[in-house]
Amino acid sequence: LALSVPEVQHHLNRRRPGQSQLTTPRTEADEIELLSGVYQGVTTGAPIAFLLRNRDARPSDYDSLAHSFRPGHADLTYALKYQHRDPTGGGRSSARATAPWVAAGAIARQFLAKQFPSFQCLAWVSQVESLAMPTDAYPETEAEVEASPTRCPHPETAQRMETLIGQAANEGDTLGAVVSGRIAGLPPGLGEPLFGKLHAQLGHALLSINACKGFEVGSGFGGATRKGSQHNDPLSFSDGRFAHVKNDAGGVLGGISTGAPVTFRCAFKPVSTLRLPQQTVDQAGNPITLQARGRHDPCVAPRAVPIVEAMACLVVADLALAQRASAPLLPL
Amino acid sequence: LALSVPEVQHHLNRRRPGQSQLTTPRTEADEIELLSGVYQGVTTGAPIAFLLRNRDARPSDYDSLAHSFRPGHADLTYALKYQHRDPTGGGRSSARATAPWVAAGAIARQFLAKQFPSFQCLAWVSQVESLAMPTDAYPETEAEVEASPTRCPHPETAQRMETLIGQAANEGDTLGAVVSGRIAGLPPGLGEPLFGKLHAQLGHALLSINACKGFEVGSGFGGATRKGSQHNDPLSFSDGRFAHVKNDAGGVLGGISTGAPVTFRCAFKPVSTLRLPQQTVDQAGNPITLQARGRHDPCVAPRAVPIVEAMACLVVADLALAQRASAPLLPL
Amino acid sequence: LALSVPEVQHHLNRRRPGQSQLTTPRTEADEIELLSGVYQGVTTGAPIAFLLRNRDARPSDYDSLAHSFRPGHADLTYALKYQHRDPTGGGRSSARATAPWVAAGAIARQFLAKQFPSFQCLAWVSQVESLAMPTDAYPETEAEVEASPTRCPHPETAQRMETLIGQAANEGDTLGAVVSGRIAGLPPGLGEPLFGKLHAQLGHALLSINACKGFEVGSGFGGATRKGSQHNDPLSFSDGRFAHVKNDAGGVLGGISTGAPVTFRCAFKPVSTLRLPQQTVDQAGNPITLQARGRHDPCVAPRAVPIVEAMACLVVADLALAQRASAPLLPL
Amino acid sequence: LALSVPEVQHHLNRRRPGQSQLTTPRTEADEIELLSGVYQGVTTGAPIAFLLRNRDARPSDYDSLAHSFRPGHADLTYALKYQHRDPTGGGRSSARATAPWVAAGAIARQFLAKQFPSFQCLAWVSQVESLAMPTDAYPETEAEVEASPTRCPHPETAQRMETLIGQAANEGDTLGAVVSGRIAGLPPGLGEPLFGKLHAQLGHALLSINACKGFEVGSGFGGATRKGSQHNDPLSFSDGRFAHVKNDAGGVLGGISTGAPVTFRCAFKPVSTLRLPQQTVDQAGNPITLQARGRHDPCVAPRAVPIVEAMACLVVADLALAQRASAPLLPL
Repeated sequence: LALSVPEVQHHLNRRRPGQSQLTTPRTEADEIELLSGVYQGVTTGAPIAFLLRNRDARPSDYDSLAHSFRPGHADLTYALKYQHRDPTGGGRSSARATAPWVAAGAIARQFLAKQFPSFQCLAWVSQVESLAMPTDAYPETEAEVEASPTRCPHPETAQRMETLIGQAANEGDTLGAVVSGRIAGLPPGLGEPLFGKLHAQLGHALLSINACKGFEVGSGFGGATRKGSQHNDPLSFSDGRFAHVKNDAGGVLGGISTGAPVTFRCAFKPVSTLRLPQQTVDQAGNPITLQARGRHDPCVAPRAVPIVEAMACLVVADLALAQRASAPLLPL
Repeated sequence: LALSVPEVQHHLNRRRPGQSQLTTPRTEADEIELLSGVYQGVTTGAPIAFLLRNRDARPSDYDSLAHSFRPGHADLTYALKYQHRDPTGGGRSSARATAPWVAAGAIARQFLAKQFPSFQCLAWVSQVESLAMPTDAYPETEAEVEASPTRCPHPETAQRMETLIGQAANEGDTLGAVVSGRIAGLPPGLGEPLFGKLHAQLGHALLSINACKGFEVGSGFGGATRKGSQHNDPLSFSDGRFAHVKNDAGGVLGGISTGAPVTFRCAFKPVSTLRLPQQTVDQAGNPITLQARGRHDPCVAPRAVPIVEAMACLVVADLALAQRASAPLLPL
Repeated sequence: LALSVPEVQHHLNRRRPGQSQLTTPRTEADEIELLSGVYQGVTTGAPIAFLLRNRDARPSDYDSLAHSFRPGHADLTYALKYQHRDPTGGGRSSARATAPWVAAGAIARQFLAKQFPSFQCLAWVSQVESLAMPTDAYPETEAEVEASPTRCPHPETAQRMETLIGQAANEGDTLGAVVSGRIAGLPPGLGEPLFGKLHAQLGHALLSINACKGFEVGSGFGGATRKGSQHNDPLSFSDGRFAHVKNDAGGVLGGISTGAPVTFRCAFKPVSTLRLPQQTVDQAGNPITLQARGRHDPCVAPRAVPIVEAMACLVVADLALAQRASAPLLPL
Repeated sequence: LALSVPEVQHHLNRRRPGQSQLTTPRTEADEIELLSGVYQGVTTGAPIAFLLRNRDARPSDYDSLAHSFRPGHADLTYALKYQHRDPTGGGRSSARATAPWVAAGAIARQFLAKQFPSFQCLAWVSQVESLAMPTDAYPETEAEVEASPTRCPHPETAQRMETLIGQAANEGDTLGAVVSGRIAGLPPGLGEPLFGKLHAQLGHALLSINACKGFEVGSGFGGATRKGSQHNDPLSFSDGRFAHVKNDAGGVLGGISTGAPVTFRCAFKPVSTLRLPQQTVDQAGNPITLQARGRHDPCVAPRAVPIVEAMACLVVADLALAQRASAPLLPL
């Protein structure tokens, strides 16, 4: 694969903090250093190793937290699991750990674009708190998503979201949100039939993103309120190909891609770190009031967009490779 | 492990068809035959192999389907993926393939009950179409779930669900539903921090169940509509142990169990096979009207309950074993 | 894949006991019952499950052993590992556990034969105790191997081996042996470069066979006594293809197949169960004299031949599938 | 685990080139830079990432090789597998790729030493070309191995080996060798019963080392020449523990550790890169004479010793963790 490193950097830049008023002012260059796997611009078949060094870690921001367990954070569960604490920023439960996922996803995306000429993977913010864009709308291009710092492609909703997030930021509070996604241009046949279903692997990958508490494919929880006679997508046939008349299935039947776009939604809880005071206990169990001084996002969703896309690309790239092993073997 | 085969059979019986008016009249004894791994009633450490033979397969029910692609089914995607069709019932995309999962889950449950004395894993039908039981209610015992053929533990809602499902059955239609679950008695520390988060593995397992289109943990999609100051679960400390004052996290922080019950919900689409006529195309692409004659459930949710429990038990048993490898090594 | 079940049965018959004077008189039909994965004679893509039931298990043969640890056997290590004993025959450390490997290998062989038209995998007994056939000789066909009950394809050596094994049987003793193998017709490029090298995976698979204590590829331990100027295989080029002038590498360089035949040898220790009296201790630690009454082979090597072939076929089939995933992706 | 980085560096220094007259004069500091997984000297449970940068890569040494396929090297098989060449030193088939294995093994060794107080893993050069030290001798300490640049712990043999290797170096030739190993202080019960046998995993790991062409455990190929009545290791019982009177099994029965030392031997072919002229063909297929100018070892065995130890430590550390998951679960 002829690998474009600037394209990888482009997606890293979309994720990194300090992009707008809506995100944490912390700055991390997130410049990628390739260590192996690429020679003269082409992948060699060796693992692609790369390094993203922390530049702007300010451990002092975390001093006051070193002896407390922040509500909604993994501080307590890490301490109980590992019997050990590393209170500095950039730890494993930090959103910073998603930066390498974005880089890896950007490589997978280039692989997929080469394999499937009409491949496209886009995510966007479709809801902040209770403010949602129309459910049947979706962006055609990345530019539509990037047009607003909210990464909501529906201009009117985007503007109202911006106001909403700004208010929460002023109050020292944070907001939950929904990120929607759409993977187009996939061939039918991707996904395993029992474990490893396309949407189950996608669910695992997306639920791995910090703060993601829910995942649905196609009609999802809405489909639970429907009748079979409304929900089933009838088949049609033209030009020698089968297709579905509508896509409530979300591009997956029996865990296997149909060829229609794979559509999904991810629920993100509000960011746990607040500037508002919170009651909790310290490591000794004494009640304390916690008030964050660190630099944190009022709403995780805009920066989650490139992470969602990256994870989705990684999943379908894996499935495409697995499917290739099953296809008729060609002369080596 | 001293293995109770009757307990395994008990859960198989909960899943098998023909249990009530609400389920398909097909009958499968689903009697388990143990092939290996148990000697004198105790597991030996060898893999536990077992066999559940199909007794009541009626391939003739499927004759009319052999040359068509049923809407909402995996017929088309299997044909495209494997370039090959096996149209008889009991195929891999049949719900029958979940019977061995239920048996495996019942074994995992016995392992967990021995490890964690207060372990309990219950699932139940919390919603059918738009009819939902109160969100804060949950059953204390399996008996409460089994009291109604709907497997809804809220008697008043259960009765209305029964009517609703009966109506759909009469109309030849089917209904979507939500199954909720609750795993109590787990220790803190289960789950991996990046990939393999407890709720991500649970999501993968539950989205693997036929017709499951969505998964959420704790507040889930509801959490996306909240503020951080409302959503965070404050910590408390008493009797030498940390706990959370409430459980919007659903028992998981950073992908690792907190010690609070793990709560989750699964969305099931309406069953795709209808007695109502449906427009679709046959394998040659000609428009046809399809009308199922097979024996199928009007709502998958009641029979999905033991499957959801089984998958949940398998996931947490795996995580408990993995965690044991990480704990301080003891003299062998 | 159009699967020939009689071909699978053929290899199971080569492995099963009771074939000749040289093997145990125990009889096991080893008849294969296919459970899944094949429809109308063609594999469907679903896992191929099959069953080989034990028919001639005589637990009474093992009564005297139930309370002792047989020298050279896994009795003690299983008891220490699992804290539990299952003394009946057909346990996991019995050679009977290799029967399903032979069936699986026979399926892999059919896959390979279809992919690579000149594919051939043969093993044979090249040495019994210190009696070895010429090192540069190898069989061209399975028939040459099957011509003698010793499965040594060198008639003169085979006859002397037969005498040697007969003597040991009469004395109640057993003999070690070497089984050699040759996989021809593989394309270059199979095998992973660091872990998962072709010969490392082959070594793992063959060292998994009961009583196998050593594995070497190409020149092996003999190569350790050589100089680089003698050992290197020079390259040639003709008809547009690269080849090696000789094959001390054994068909593998850097863990990857060269296209030349993969040649290897496996050392088998003498069978541990003897009719000769042996000093050991019982489970209570008391000294006892042990004298086997069971039906056992005086030399494991003739029956090991189909097992060695099966494991070799499984390894290269895996590698062929893995390589296919890496090759240029074709339109699905 | 309290991790000693100097101990890791110690083993890296044992592997790196330029240590004596017997090894390549290339110099690589091989200084380890820890990137993650250790905080205040203690492992955190996060993956331990480290970096060993190439300092002394001289691509010009490889210029003449860029268009030829060196006999005995992986040049051809990499080119055929990946359809792509990266001719510079430090490639994946270079012995340099074993440096991170040595670092990882040194970490595993510290883990094992903490778990099993009498744990010891030693390797040594037991044979060069046909010159072998006595088979029943083995070193008690690392110091005995390090006493000679040959890493043969038998002083008289070591001196003769040194002469032999020096001669080969003068002639521009290279020599094959055998490295022996011994892992003491392991508990019984490590290793899986079918696939994943202790010696099969060890074989896989050691056959992964560059130039290793053979592996044997215990009596190995010598055991193939023995009778069962000589080969079986009788059991004894004293002080409440079972033991074996001798150890021809090499510390493994049925793939599971017995508690006796695990003994093994690895065959290394002579280094393929020679200063002597060799006939081969270039990438276009034209006959050429190849004469290496690079800096290479006349015998790989002395530097292979720390690599063999590292791989052995990694395998038994994995098995110890796996066994821990199977042991009775303790309160978390």
